[in-house]
Formats: sequence, C-alpha cells, structure tokens
Amino acid sequence: MDELQAVQWHNGKVRLLDQTKLPQELVLLEISDYHGVVKSINSLAVRGAPAIGVAAAFGVVLAVCNADEVDRAGFITRANQAIDALKQTRPTAKNLFWALEKMRNAMSKNLNKPLREVKNAMLRQAQDILNDDIARCKKIGEHGAGLIPFRCTVLTHCNAGALATGGFGTALGIVRAAIEQGKKIKVFADETRPLLQGARLTTFELMEDDIDVTLITDSMAAYVIKKGLVQVVVVGADRIARNGDVANKIGTYGLAILAKEHKIPFVVAAPLSTFDPDTESGDDIRIEERDADEVRRIGDVLIAPEDVQVFNPAFDVTPNELISALVSERGVVRFPNEEKLKDWLK
Amino acid sequence: MDELQAVQWHNGKVRLLDQTKLPQELVLLEISDYHGVVKSINSLAVRGAPAIGVAAAFGVVLAVCNADEVDRAGFITRANQAIDALKQTRPTAKNLFWALEKMRNAMSKNLNKPLREVKNAMLRQAQDILNDDIARCKKIGEHGAGLIPFRCTVLTHCNAGALATGGFGTALGIVRAAIEQGKKIKVFADETRPLLQGARLTTFELMEDDIDVTLITDSMAAYVIKKGLVQVVVVGADRIARNGDVANKIGTYGLAILAKEHKIPFVVAAPLSTFDPDTESGDDIRIEERDADEVRRIGDVLIAPEDVQVFNPAFDVTPNELISALVSERGVVRFPNEEKLKDWLK
Repeated sequence: MDELQAVQWHNGKVRLLDQTKLPQELVLLEISDYHGVVKSINSLAVRGAPAIGVAAAFGVVLAVCNADEVDRAGFITRANQAIDALKQTRPTAKNLFWALEKMRNAMSKNLNKPLREVKNAMLRQAQDILNDDIARCKKIGEHGAGLIPFRCTVLTHCNAGALATGGFGTALGIVRAAIEQGKKIKVFADETRPLLQGARLTTFELMEDDIDVTLITDSMAAYVIKKGLVQVVVVGADRIARNGDVANKIGTYGLAILAKEHKIPFVVAAPLSTFDPDTESGDDIRIEERDADEVRRIGDVLIAPEDVQVFNPAFDVTPNELISALVSERGVVRFPNEEKLKDWLK
Repeated sequence: MDELQAVQWHNGKVRLLDQTKLPQELVLLEISDYHGVVKSINSLAVRGAPAIGVAAAFGVVLAVCNADEVDRAGFITRANQAIDALKQTRPTAKNLFWALEKMRNAMSKNLNKPLREVKNAMLRQAQDILNDDIARCKKIGEHGAGLIPFRCTVLTHCNAGALATGGFGTALGIVRAAIEQGKKIKVFADETRPLLQGARLTTFELMEDDIDVTLITDSMAAYVIKKGLVQVVVVGADRIARNGDVANKIGTYGLAILAKEHKIPFVVAAPLSTFDPDTESGDDIRIEERDADEVRRIGDVLIAPEDVQVFNPAFDVTPNELISALVSERGVVRFPNEEKLKDWLK
C-alpha cells in the first residue's frame, strides 16, 4: 500500500498523503519547498509524531537541495531557517525536534565537504529517518505483540498507525504484528474528536488491511470497557518524559483512568525518538492549544453557536503510574518510572 | 424565552422546538396528530427524558382531541393505540412511560363522564405534567444549588436544561438556581457526540441566559478536571433504578469515574418521574442502540468510511457507588442506595 504511505521522497520532492482529506479523498501533495512542509504540518495534512519527524527531515532537505548553488554561509543559513521554521510548527511531539537535530548534525558533520556532498548526506539522513522508523515500528510490533492475548479486542485512540509513522505504525503495529503471529485480534477505534483521526484514519487503514475494526465515539469507551468488550488499551505517544509520563492525543489520559478502574492493561507504543530525557516529567511538557473552530466545526459544518467559548488542548499527559507497559524498538518496560527508563535508555 | 420552550400546547396542536436544527435555526413544529409526535421523539426533534414525557402526554391528547366524535369504544382504542405507539419510541427514559401511564389513568378515571369531559381531563393532565415539570425543575434547582460552592465551575454532559424538560432544566436548573442565589458559576459543556446536544443545546441555552459556558469535546473532560478547572460534575438522568443506579446519555459513566479519580462530587439531577422502583438495578435497564450513521456522519457529512462497523449505544449506566448525590424535587440523597431511596420515595 505504497500510496498509503504518509511521507515519501519522490523525484526531489516531498510527497505527502493529505490526511485531512482521508478517507473520502486520496490526495497526494507534491511539495517542493520547506514552507509547504511547514504548512502541511500545521494543517495536519501530515500528523502523528513519527511521521511529523520524517516530514520535517525532508523539509530541511528541500530547503537546501532545490536551491541553486549558493555559498557555504548561505547554505547554512538556509538550512537553519528551515529547521527553525519547522521547529515552530507543533510544540508537543518530541520526534519533530529529534529529527531536526539529526538533520542539523548531518549538515555539521559534513561541512568540510563540497556542498553537493553535504546535500547528499542530508538527504541520506532524512531517508534513514524514514526507513529506520518503519524498521522501528516492526520491532515495536514484535515486542508489543507479546503483551496481547491470543484472542482479544484492543481499544485504541487517535491514529498511531502506518499513517502516523514511516509505515506499519506503533500502536497499530502491535495489532498488525499480533495478527501476523496468528492471534485473533479485533479493534475498537475511538473516533477522536476534534479532528477525528480515529474515525477517518484508524478505521481506514485497518479496513485496508482487512482487520476487524468497530468505530465508537470517545464517550463510549467507558461503556465498552465496562461491558468486557475490550481486553487491552494500546495507544501511541507524542513525547515521553524521563519518568515515563506520556503526552499523547487529548483523551488518552481519560482512557488510562478507565483502564485502571476496570483492571485492564494500558500499553503505550513509541519509537525511542519519542523519549525525551531532557523533560523531567509530564508537567514540563508543553501542551499545544489549537484553534477554537476545530471544536465549533466539523469540516466546514458549524455544530455549535458561532461565538461560543472553546478550550481546545490537542494533547494530555498520562502519568507513569497509569501505564502498564511502554514498548519501543528496544523492548518492553513494565510499569515505567525514572529509574527503569534510565537503565533502559542507556 | 417562550420560543425556547421545548414543548407547548398551542391552539389544539403540539408545538415543538425542533432541536435537531438548533442552534443554527429556530424552527417550530406544529403537530396535529400523534404520529407526528412519535416521529419527533424518534428523530430527537424533542429529546431529554422529562421533555419526552411531556410531548408524549400531549401526543395522547392529539389522538383523542382532534378526532371527530366517536363512540366510547373507539375513543379508548384510539387513546390506547397512541399510548402504545408512543411507548415504542425510546426504551430508556422512564419519564415517557410514567407520563403515558398518567394519561391512561386520566382517561380511565373519567370514563363514566361524557367524552368531551374525558378529553378535557386528559388535556388538563398533560398540561399538569408540563407545568409540574417546570415546578419540579425549580425545586430541583433550589435543592441542588446547596451542593454547589459559591464560586466554582460545573462540568455537564449532554443537555439536561430547559430544552430537555418543561423548562428551567434539571442539571442546568441547579446551575440557574445557584446563579439566582448570587453564586459565581461557570460551566464547561461536553459536546456530547454523537448528536452533540452539549455543543448545540447546552451552550445555546446558557448563552441565551448570559451564563459563562465553555465548550470542550468529550475527550477533554479528564484533562480539564485534572487541571483543577472543574469543582463539580452535574448531569441529568433518563432512568434511576431502585438502588440508585443511573442511566443517562452515553459518556456519563466515564465522567463519574473521572470524578471519583479526582475526588470531585458527581451529582445527578432528575424529577421523581425519572425514578423507577420497578427496576432493581442498572443491569435491568434497556440501553437503546441507535443508527450507525449517527456515528459515521455529523449532520450530512460523512466522517468515516461509509461501511465501517459501528457500535452506537445511546446511554450508559452509572452505578450508585459513583454518585455523590441524587437531587429531585423532594430534596437530596447523598450516596444513594436501595435502602435510602426506599425511605425517600415513600
């Protein structure tokens, strides 16, 4: 399902699947300058922490690659401008900053070489970020599948799938890997208001893969869990603090409380690029607030009084004590805390 | 705000404010036969447990009042047909069955009189149900306001307001009464997917009354509570079992768990007509499941794959141990259970 890849490098351009249009329209955006990548991240045409990192990396490549030959100082300025602009897009996902740092290093390390080679090194770095992300997701899937009973239903929130990553997915990577191992897995997908990534993206990509998925509104999760219809909750992450607190799509924290109340495991899946050892705890994670119209409207349709006050945080923080297991490409940490993560991230 | 009354009797017709059109359009439906009332309850043009009861009562009046003079047997058949059809509309709200029973009694008790007088007695009964409901809401407001701190923010779900009742509201009646007592109250309104009664109706009626209201998606409630932005949760009810278990709009149960986890009170407000001593516990309450397209679409807009599987329960059950207080026109029962309610309902 190549056309369902969130981010690709194609003929010197960044090709993004416009996720604001899914599942009704399959639109590929061909982007030839980094401003277009900035815009696409802001508008959520590309979203999901790992995919944002990949897109941003290619954005930096665009800034230097499609430029005419310039002097070295101009080249560096151009790259730094792109990095700075891309950093301003979204504050919460760690992977964005991680990927941009990788790109800056790829440039710095090669600055003694001809500019053409610096460009090539930067392009290779971005391609590595993409390819590594897919490989990491597969590893996450393998490790995480061990936590999933042979026959069970997984509840997930937002989209931590192929569309949120280089491919395969983190939370949905675990689902895919469990199914590849022969397990009988069904999925409940929270629709994930305001922007409906669950309704639009998770259902879509699971149905493409013939995985049994049932859509519910976010408010139905408690009832579904109480009825015993769900055995495990699996979600992705946008940033994981040093102590294991997890920032993820708004609604995740509430789900974690429901999982605790009903004594089912709450599993978080993310590549190591999501882990942020510089952030002490969830209290230190900046939570993006987005435009009120995302709540007042659905698409173009007004669903509330036009001038109603709105609060629209895009993420929340789940404290480590609510997390049964963190899964990365390195394996599984059960009941994460600062000490365990310190050893594990060494 | 007379034009904002959910149900009125006007010139021999039932006048309903079409709540599917709010807040964008203010459409009044003039209904002259009971089939129209059945349709309006099914389509949620009128919704909210007490308002459904009122509308159904007037529906029975339409069945007998606007009919030509018929023989006594025909009259009874006509009334019973209407009662049976109205009973089939929605299974969960107790008030519907309560109101229809009242109407049947008003007929039975007066059957020794001329048909004109039976009709008049039935109309008076329906008008009493409407007027009593407003009076009950005011009492609920007075009793419940005592549970609300002087300066606080209330979180509510769905619409348990003037639009859900004869007028004034149950949960929102408590907010209104607290404000009338001089308290400084703000409200967070959950949007309440799938049908957005919070986004469309609660915000609208509170803004009409100049009450400070902020709209959030259902998935934001946990974050808002955790941040300390809410001091009490107040909701309505569709049916309250003998032991105090409460059926209410889907999402209520999850909120009750969040309130417990964060140690804030969870208050349920409903008239005595919502209490069902014939239902032993929440397990015995039938939960209506509604059409999948309510989740797949918002208004006419498709927001998910057209053929995605959906689970769409309209209500959930909150067990009595999660309820800090039940408020009716009779007063307040803290930490309700079967014993306390038995005494209280005597």
